[in-house]
Amino acid sequence: MNPPLSSEQVKAFYQQRKVLVVGGLGFIGSTLAHLLVAQGAKVTLLDNFLPDHGANWHNLEGIREQVNVQVSDLRNSESLRQLLQEQQLVFNIGGQTSHSDSMLNPFLDLDINCRGNLILLEACRELRPEMRIVFAGTRAFYGTPESLPVDESARLLPQDVYAVNRLAAEQYHLVYHRHYGLPVTSLRLGNLYGPRGQMQHPRYNVLNYFVRMALENQTIRIYGDGSQRRDYLYVADAAEALLRAGASEHATGKVYNVGSGQDQAFVELVRTIVRLAGQGAYEHVEWPAGSKAYDVGDFVMEIGAIQQDLDWQPSTSLEQGLKQTLDYYDQRRSQYWG
Amino acid sequence: MNPPLSSEQVKAFYQQRKVLVVGGLGFIGSTLAHLLVAQGAKVTLLDNFLPDHGANWHNLEGIREQVNVQVSDLRNSESLRQLLQEQQLVFNIGGQTSHSDSMLNPFLDLDINCRGNLILLEACRELRPEMRIVFAGTRAFYGTPESLPVDESARLLPQDVYAVNRLAAEQYHLVYHRHYGLPVTSLRLGNLYGPRGQMQHPRYNVLNYFVRMALENQTIRIYGDGSQRRDYLYVADAAEALLRAGASEHATGKVYNVGSGQDQAFVELVRTIVRLAGQGAYEHVEWPAGSKAYDVGDFVMEIGAIQQDLDWQPSTSLEQGLKQTLDYYDQRRSQYWG
Repeated sequence: MNPPLSSEQVKAFYQQRKVLVVGGLGFIGSTLAHLLVAQGAKVTLLDNFLPDHGANWHNLEGIREQVNVQVSDLRNSESLRQLLQEQQLVFNIGGQTSHSDSMLNPFLDLDINCRGNLILLEACRELRPEMRIVFAGTRAFYGTPESLPVDESARLLPQDVYAVNRLAAEQYHLVYHRHYGLPVTSLRLGNLYGPRGQMQHPRYNVLNYFVRMALENQTIRIYGDGSQRRDYLYVADAAEALLRAGASEHATGKVYNVGSGQDQAFVELVRTIVRLAGQGAYEHVEWPAGSKAYDVGDFVMEIGAIQQDLDWQPSTSLEQGLKQTLDYYDQRRSQYWG
Repeated sequence: MNPPLSSEQVKAFYQQRKVLVVGGLGFIGSTLAHLLVAQGAKVTLLDNFLPDHGANWHNLEGIREQVNVQVSDLRNSESLRQLLQEQQLVFNIGGQTSHSDSMLNPFLDLDINCRGNLILLEACRELRPEMRIVFAGTRAFYGTPESLPVDESARLLPQDVYAVNRLAAEQYHLVYHRHYGLPVTSLRLGNLYGPRGQMQHPRYNVLNYFVRMALENQTIRIYGDGSQRRDYLYVADAAEALLRAGASEHATGKVYNVGSGQDQAFVELVRTIVRLAGQGAYEHVEWPAGSKAYDVGDFVMEIGAIQQDLDWQPSTSLEQGLKQTLDYYDQRRSQYWG
């Protein structure tokens, strides 16, 4: 086992490297794009501007002139194949991301999260089998865990169509690795929050939406007592994990959890947001009919594997990350909602 | 926990029951159809006659007048919805079943095994949420096991696109159970062999194809030393498990392994076939390039859960099952290949 790359080695790796970010104008993709530009990479962002999702031109503030943007879709096979010819590395982050929307329209979710990913993998297999691919998976693969913290070998029990399809997409990547040697890595991302998120509605990322509610001096509703424990990861820390995975040859064929590794009660998180915002409030309400089915109770990730293999760990405390998040949106309300 | 149903109770359950078998003219579906007719059920068989698959009118020998056949496809949503109106129970067995074809045409596999199953589940949710559904999964969900025997909680690591998609289909069933209360059960079937299989080519079921080769006095090629241990289950035993699962309310929401629970070296199985056939031979050859990627090594199922909950167990010895299989095809060569 090679030792993990140093930050200098990571930076050297990305210098002039041609990198494609699928979902590049969204929450995670655009945060990664900022990091990639800072490393000296030649960055192309692919985004389909899926309605209600996070693609937002304001996410490129400060790097707009340094990235190439393609408004297209993985499912547009011809345009994708054209694009791949020039790339060395793909961060495969985009997708339909709503648990509840996937239940309302399972066929759209299937088309994006399964067929779209197969199109990407088939194109790489045919045209660029050496293409490095880093896939963004999700903690939702695990469903309700049997024990905590949850490591990468824990039972997989996706609880909704989105999680089923996204898990299938991760498994396609691993199948293409084993059969065709495609150098893939999957990172299963935990509960993320931070700048550049989608803030129009609470359906995809309730943490960020709570930040908006506090900034608007609204009352946050917590379903039940909010005692479920979760870990919360600052999005820039997740992007740093993606960056390290892409540069690390020995991450090929691997799956890593990416979370904070620290847990806190949900209600505590809400209290912290309200306290740091200096406004807003919260109240406890009953679980709405049917919504409890989406909840998985306590969830904390074991992150020892990526710490050891890639020397990655979260560097932003919850307090610090929430402050930065509040500041970011406070200064840009009209760009994210309104 | 209710005690398992007796055979009399199972038979009483199926009397006059309206049952749909998806994939009803194939290997497993038609074997189940014979059992269902014997129980007094009102049987409808849905089959799309997918090219190269097992649908064969000769599989209905003896029950052709007692079943209703619909040549259609799960993906024909309107025809399916029409059909479902009249049913009480669905055995969801059909699908694309070739590991290697799924790698050659992953999009067709996705369309059949994922989209087709979502269409069925969506139709049941909307029109008949009380519909009992028994899904046929596969041992391929487990990939290469970490330890033997493999129980239902073992790690899931599908090795090809077929296994990924079929696992997604099982997970859709469980998601629709948890969210909408659909009464589903999944049986993960092991290595099956027996009458009414597809015998034109060896791509889907190599055990049955070996029977044909022996009957044709050919030399069976074993890749490598054939020492990998497997369990082999007679198809009528698998059909009996499906039958019991469908009748057992307490199997709802559950997943069960269905295998023989006994292992034998692959080469031993081949020797037995050749011995019982009184002709044919075998030889060892090198693994063809790439084909080893499909092999999962030793595999034996733990079947204690279904034994306990449903009082099911294999009743046909390998020797007896192979004899019956040889006899069946020996008398019907022109119906299965030719």
